[in-house]
Amino acid sequence: MVPHLRDYFDAFTRRDWQTLDPAAVDDPVRVALVGLGWFTREWALPGVQRSAFTEATVVTDVDAEAVATVAAEHDLVGLSTEEFRDGVAADQYDAVYVATPNAAHLEYVERAADRGKAVLCEKPLEATVDRAERAVAACEAAGVPLMVGYRMQTEPAVRRVKALLDEGFVGDVVHVHATMSQTMLGELTDATDQWRLDADQSGGCALMDLGVYPINTTRFLLDADPTRVFGHTRSEHVAFDAVDEHAAFQLAFPEDVHALCTVSQNAQHASRLEITGTEGRLVLDPAFYEREERAARIVRGGVAADLEFEPVHQLEEEAAYFGHHLLTDTAFHPDGRHALTDMRVLDAIYESAATGSPVSLSL
Amino acid sequence: MVPHLRDYFDAFTRRDWQTLDPAAVDDPVRVALVGLGWFTREWALPGVQRSAFTEATVVTDVDAEAVATVAAEHDLVGLSTEEFRDGVAADQYDAVYVATPNAAHLEYVERAADRGKAVLCEKPLEATVDRAERAVAACEAAGVPLMVGYRMQTEPAVRRVKALLDEGFVGDVVHVHATMSQTMLGELTDATDQWRLDADQSGGCALMDLGVYPINTTRFLLDADPTRVFGHTRSEHVAFDAVDEHAAFQLAFPEDVHALCTVSQNAQHASRLEITGTEGRLVLDPAFYEREERAARIVRGGVAADLEFEPVHQLEEEAAYFGHHLLTDTAFHPDGRHALTDMRVLDAIYESAATGSPVSLSL
Repeated sequence: MVPHLRDYFDAFTRRDWQTLDPAAVDDPVRVALVGLGWFTREWALPGVQRSAFTEATVVTDVDAEAVATVAAEHDLVGLSTEEFRDGVAADQYDAVYVATPNAAHLEYVERAADRGKAVLCEKPLEATVDRAERAVAACEAAGVPLMVGYRMQTEPAVRRVKALLDEGFVGDVVHVHATMSQTMLGELTDATDQWRLDADQSGGCALMDLGVYPINTTRFLLDADPTRVFGHTRSEHVAFDAVDEHAAFQLAFPEDVHALCTVSQNAQHASRLEITGTEGRLVLDPAFYEREERAARIVRGGVAADLEFEPVHQLEEEAAYFGHHLLTDTAFHPDGRHALTDMRVLDAIYESAATGSPVSLSL
Repeated sequence: MVPHLRDYFDAFTRRDWQTLDPAAVDDPVRVALVGLGWFTREWALPGVQRSAFTEATVVTDVDAEAVATVAAEHDLVGLSTEEFRDGVAADQYDAVYVATPNAAHLEYVERAADRGKAVLCEKPLEATVDRAERAVAACEAAGVPLMVGYRMQTEPAVRRVKALLDEGFVGDVVHVHATMSQTMLGELTDATDQWRLDADQSGGCALMDLGVYPINTTRFLLDADPTRVFGHTRSEHVAFDAVDEHAAFQLAFPEDVHALCTVSQNAQHASRLEITGTEGRLVLDPAFYEREERAARIVRGGVAADLEFEPVHQLEEEAAYFGHHLLTDTAFHPDGRHALTDMRVLDAIYESAATGSPVSLSL
């Protein structure tokens, strides 16, 4: 039986994970946002506000002026980081969104866990594997749910591609290519982002900031984890002296499926993921940036389709998933342990880049 | 000064290497074609016939029926391979095109060299590095010109992309992705192609037959040779028990530019090469097959252009380049020594696949 394509089209951007009627939610999850860089202000805060399952109530940052401005503009409680640490207004939020420099995630995750608040932490989970493990341990010890902000996992385009893989659209997956690049210093001029060039604050640059997209998205799509990695990093410009400007890496998944990935903080914008299988091919291009249009090309045998659709607000989807799963007491797919795997993969790629040899993972 | 785009458009498929007026050629290079598989019959023979600088005069193959059919249909001298070896009708050709199974190239190259005939040999040059070196040595000892059939090097789309790289269109090259795949047993059902599954005859399958395209095209475009490779091959279907069905490999070029490549003889058709630089991006898709349309997407800063153009007959271009350069006594770019580098790269990738470690090359 040929399925009705009208149903496929109608359901394309519908949330396949949603069991709770948004209109029936009277008490959305109240979120305190920690870290008011451009991404929080332009994407995460609007996302939390747009989602029916969440609302923003509190903001904090080391930058007092940013706190005052954002709090006033959105009618939120603005706290200094000292006030936040001391528990001021802690009864006004149920959950904490952490979007500080990577190496500050742990502190805020621990603080939230101590107070029994659920956590939505930006990726990568921390600057090092050790600190990421401590963040997960803190949440597990306190019994608070921890989600990591892999917004590709709630992006409908990615979920439809995953559904195609699951239904056998491409047959056996043969290999994956993924690339993500931007001119970081050209496009993102806000000074709050320069922590990415500080290895202590970030744990790395191209690989930590961008590499996590191809890695996690491929893991999510294939429903598998890499067993071996081989990678290379390099920097050619002085601004990137302390961190990796470019990276190229290869992930070996079970069944010997290889994903070949490149990322760069100083290259022409690119954002693409393609999966080639024995019977079909799936291409997301653009794939990874929140500010892009979405499109997918799907090919099977002699038939190809270019899918275009109205982009969702990716941070609204992510916040909605977070709030929805808290309200329904449902486990997150991208939880702390899931994110630890990415941290170990990233770490192994840096190790491979340093030694020049492939590194096996026992995840 | 903004250049005139009308000139760019008008010159797009014009041969930038051509110095001899085709209309002025009275005595084109007479070519004997050795090996009448589907590629020779459908592409190489028509290419030699179409080119103003070459003409087909003699054909030979181990299949007597194929020889009789092709010779009659095209009014050519048809020889058994024994007759060809014995020098029958040797005064009726100036050059030999070799398109036998890889492991038979050497024999025919040597035979041609012995008789002072120029050689156009299909790629890969032979089934092993050692035999390829012997083929080059035979031609050098006899003083006969040897060209290897890298038809991408005379494909206008590839040459325009190279010109863009040379003018600095993408700034510094950061990385390259390339993929080429087909369902060999589905699409190419002709029995004469099954030698590709015989390791002794072919030297390998996915990598030898397809891998040479991303390798050689990237070398040509970057005007550089890989210094280190890392690769992986695998076979999952019984037909490919003796050879590689799929391969994934990474080539490190000078300046730490990495090319990430995948090829497969049993996957959905794909054919793509993309180069990302600090300031621009060049994508050939489709890229590699003679039977495809041609298109290129070129991006620099905020401006993108999709280039479409009437495809040339790739084998006519290759044959014309071969004949033209013989008539003008000009050295070939893709000569025997150029091809030896690909053989060493292929060999190193197989070695890396066998050992699981990267392999350095001193070319």
